[in-house]
Amino acid sequence: MASTVGDGDAAPTPPSARADPRVARTRNDVLRVALDVLIDEGRDAVTHPHLARVSGYSRATLYNHWPTRAHLVRDAFTLLGDVAHHTPTGDLRSDLIGELSMFRLGMQRHRLDRALAVLADLAVSMPELADLRDHLVVDGERVLRELLSRVLRGPELEAAALMLSGAILHSALMHARLPDDEVIAATVDLVLAGSQVGE
Amino acid sequence: MASTVGDGDAAPTPPSARADPRVARTRNDVLRVALDVLIDEGRDAVTHPHLARVSGYSRATLYNHWPTRAHLVRDAFTLLGDVAHHTPTGDLRSDLIGELSMFRLGMQRHRLDRALAVLADLAVSMPELADLRDHLVVDGERVLRELLSRVLRGPELEAAALMLSGAILHSALMHARLPDDEVIAATVDLVLAGSQVGE
Repeated sequence: MASTVGDGDAAPTPPSARADPRVARTRNDVLRVALDVLIDEGRDAVTHPHLARVSGYSRATLYNHWPTRAHLVRDAFTLLGDVAHHTPTGDLRSDLIGELSMFRLGMQRHRLDRALAVLADLAVSMPELADLRDHLVVDGERVLRELLSRVLRGPELEAAALMLSGAILHSALMHARLPDDEVIAATVDLVLAGSQVGE
Repeated sequence: MASTVGDGDAAPTPPSARADPRVARTRNDVLRVALDVLIDEGRDAVTHPHLARVSGYSRATLYNHWPTRAHLVRDAFTLLGDVAHHTPTGDLRSDLIGELSMFRLGMQRHRLDRALAVLADLAVSMPELADLRDHLVVDGERVLRELLSRVLRGPELEAAALMLSGAILHSALMHARLPDDEVIAATVDLVLAGSQVGE
């Protein structure tokens, strides 16, 4: 997904150049650093001079690939594209818990929560980031909604999808902590009991 | 609450000056503009020159009150302090729906969702904003947790509080839309049915 989202018409590098593996490696190296800096130091720290120092590439190279900081930030977010999913086993309860645990793992390992907070903020003023956010959300919720659609539909399905994703996002962003296994299991059990399926 | 949170030791204006109603009005005027700009244009737009233009106060006045942009942003968030709550009627289901509807109303009227996204991002690098966020969250969830504690406890109570707040936050930040009445009612009904209380 990373290669198909947010990498479109506004990208300054022509397709012929991007096919060059060295150019592709440079882009990827710098964007990986940009995403790390964004998450660790906040987005104000994503500047060409700082990324040049950290990545080891020249400022000229960075300006050549990304004329503005906005281009850098936008393209860095395309690295978020690969959302990891739980592989369903057929047991609804454990599959839902597994999928939510993968969402939590993305926050633990990659600080996905911080990236999502910045993305939500920037999408207000950058329409192409709104598109990227929409793609990430659709991909991110796909497995969860498939699982829930076995027992819920309509407003209940929508509510359950928002509640389960939202419990983890809200905990990370607003409480600055991730829910433990017991709380994740309780979110799933409340939804399943509410849907009158249970275990 | 706004007067007790984030208005502490780092504020440059001494208490004697703040007691002056003109000074208090100036501070409030500028911070209101700062919060509006933050929400409407993004936080990069919160600069002394821009706020001076929009608020009608001189740059010198603004620099005198807030030496840095960080001070401006931090103090602007203190205006978020007054979280509006539903007044409980005694009917648990309608009280929960009423409280969630107030949370949604804050996002509709005051773009609380955008403010929370910026706050979550900035709290990573500004510890005093983390304190402010914690106060806002405790105050914001107080009524909801009181209501839920009548039928749930332990991990189930924690899960339900995160799910109900999270459904609205996640919808606003990640889907860029607010849940309608039917979806809000469905979130409450799932939790209440899951808690084996129902109607």
